[in-house]
Amino acid sequence: MGTTQLETVPEPKYWHLKTVLSNALDSEFAVGEILPNERDLAARFGVARATLRQALEQLELEGRLQRRRGVGTTVAPPRMGVAVGDSRQAWPGAVADPWQTLGSTSGDVPAAVVRLLAPATGEAVYTVRRALTTDGQPVAAELLYVPAGSVPELTGDENAATAPGGATALPAGGAARARSVLRELHRLELDGQERTVELGSARADDARALDRLPGAPVLVVTTRYLSAGRTAAVSVATYRADTCRLTFGDAAPDLLAS
Amino acid sequence: MGTTQLETVPEPKYWHLKTVLSNALDSEFAVGEILPNERDLAARFGVARATLRQALEQLELEGRLQRRRGVGTTVAPPRMGVAVGDSRQAWPGAVADPWQTLGSTSGDVPAAVVRLLAPATGEAVYTVRRALTTDGQPVAAELLYVPAGSVPELTGDENAATAPGGATALPAGGAARARSVLRELHRLELDGQERTVELGSARADDARALDRLPGAPVLVVTTRYLSAGRTAAVSVATYRADTCRLTFGDAAPDLLAS
Repeated sequence: MGTTQLETVPEPKYWHLKTVLSNALDSEFAVGEILPNERDLAARFGVARATLRQALEQLELEGRLQRRRGVGTTVAPPRMGVAVGDSRQAWPGAVADPWQTLGSTSGDVPAAVVRLLAPATGEAVYTVRRALTTDGQPVAAELLYVPAGSVPELTGDENAATAPGGATALPAGGAARARSVLRELHRLELDGQERTVELGSARADDARALDRLPGAPVLVVTTRYLSAGRTAAVSVATYRADTCRLTFGDAAPDLLAS
Repeated sequence: MGTTQLETVPEPKYWHLKTVLSNALDSEFAVGEILPNERDLAARFGVARATLRQALEQLELEGRLQRRRGVGTTVAPPRMGVAVGDSRQAWPGAVADPWQTLGSTSGDVPAAVVRLLAPATGEAVYTVRRALTTDGQPVAAELLYVPAGSVPELTGDENAATAPGGATALPAGGAARARSVLRELHRLELDGQERTVELGSARADDARALDRLPGAPVLVVTTRYLSAGRTAAVSVATYRADTCRLTFGDAAPDLLAS
C-alpha cells in the first residue's frame, strides 16, 4: 500500500518485520502453504518471538495469513467478495437467497436487538438460525429475530420464557418451523432495509459454525427490515473477517475482488 | 448476547474471564473511566497476565474497551453510527459531504487500486487525502485516487513518477489543488457506486491521523465511483474499528445506534 511521509513516523519493530514478512509471502510462499513454526521464523528474521507474533497478527488482520485449527498458520488466498447490500430489496429466504435455513433457536434475545424490535411486552420472538457457505467453506452465521406480531398466522408455544427487555424467546425448533417463519414473513410488504457493519469477536457458537476459535475477529452486520413503519425483523449476521470482504452495490461481487 | 448450546462448547479460560469483566464494566465502571493496570486486574480475578490480556483484547474488538495512547485502557462509549452507503448518490466533496479535504499526496498508487482504476499506461493519478471527524474526534482517513482522464481540465506535473502498474503518482500539493481535483470530478455524471468493507490494520500514516497505534484494527471501505462505464475514481477510507459502526441505508444513522 502507498504511504506518505512514512519517514517522519517512528515505526515499531514489528511493523518493519510485517513488511519484510509480507514480501517473503509474495516471493517464497504459495497460497495454502503452511508457515514454519514461530521459533524458526523468529530465528530467521532475528527477532524476539513476541515481535514475530505481533507481525503475524497484523498479517492475519489484513487477510494475508490464516490461523487454522489443527493446521497452523497458512498463506491466505485473496478474500472473497460476499454480497451484502443487495439492490434487490427482498426478505430473507426469498428466491435466490443463498443462505441456508438451519432451524430455530431458543437463546435470549440480545438487548440491542430488543431495542431495535421494540416488541410489545412479553411478545414472542422467533429466532431463526441460518448459515452462508461458499464452495463448502463457512462464510457467515446469522440469527434472524422475528417478533410474533410480524407473523401472526404462526402460533407460539406455552413453554416460551420471557427474555430481558420484555421479549419472549420461543423454544428451539427444526428447519421446517424456521422456514414457516420465513414464509409468513414474506406475506408482509418490505419497505426498506437499514444496515450497520462493525467489528466484533466470534461468540462460541458462531465460532464453531465458522470453523474459527472463539473470539476471532468477525464483521457483524445488523440489518433492520422495515414494513408498514415498524421493524418487522432484525438479522445479526457474523461474517468471517479473515476470508470475507463485504460488497455493497449493484455490480457482481467479483468486480471488486482483489 | 444470546447464545445457544453454549453448554456443549468448551470455553477457553479468557472467554469466561471476558464475560466476568464485561459484567464488571457494566456494574462498576463509567464510560471513560481508566481501568486498573493489568497486574492489579490479573490479581483481582486470579488469572495469569496472558489470560487477562486476551480477555482485554476481546473486549477491545467488541468496542467495550479502548486503548488510548498515553492514557491506558478506558471504558468505551457506545460506538457511533457513521453513514457510509448514502442514498444521495454524490461525488466526494459534494454539498453536505462531511469529509474535510486536507491536500494531495505523492505516495504510490496501491496495486489493488491500480487494478480497479485500470489507468492507461503512465496515466497520472491524483491522490487526495481527506479526513472525517465527529465532535473533534478523528473517525476516518481517506485516500481518493482520481486518474487524470477523469479530470482532463487539470494539468499534471512533469516531476511525476511512474508507479508500479503503469499509473503515475503526482507530487504532493495543498488543499487548494485537492479541491480543484474534486471540483473537476463533479463535472462528470455519476452513474453509481460500489463498495467493499473489510477488516484491515492501520498503516502508520492512517494510525497517526486516527490517533491510534500502527496496526490497530480498522474497517477499510473501498468505493468505486462509476461514470460513463468506467471507474472515474476510487476511494480507500480507513475507519476506526473501535469507535465506529458503519451505517448503510436511508434512515438516520442514530436509528441503529446501540
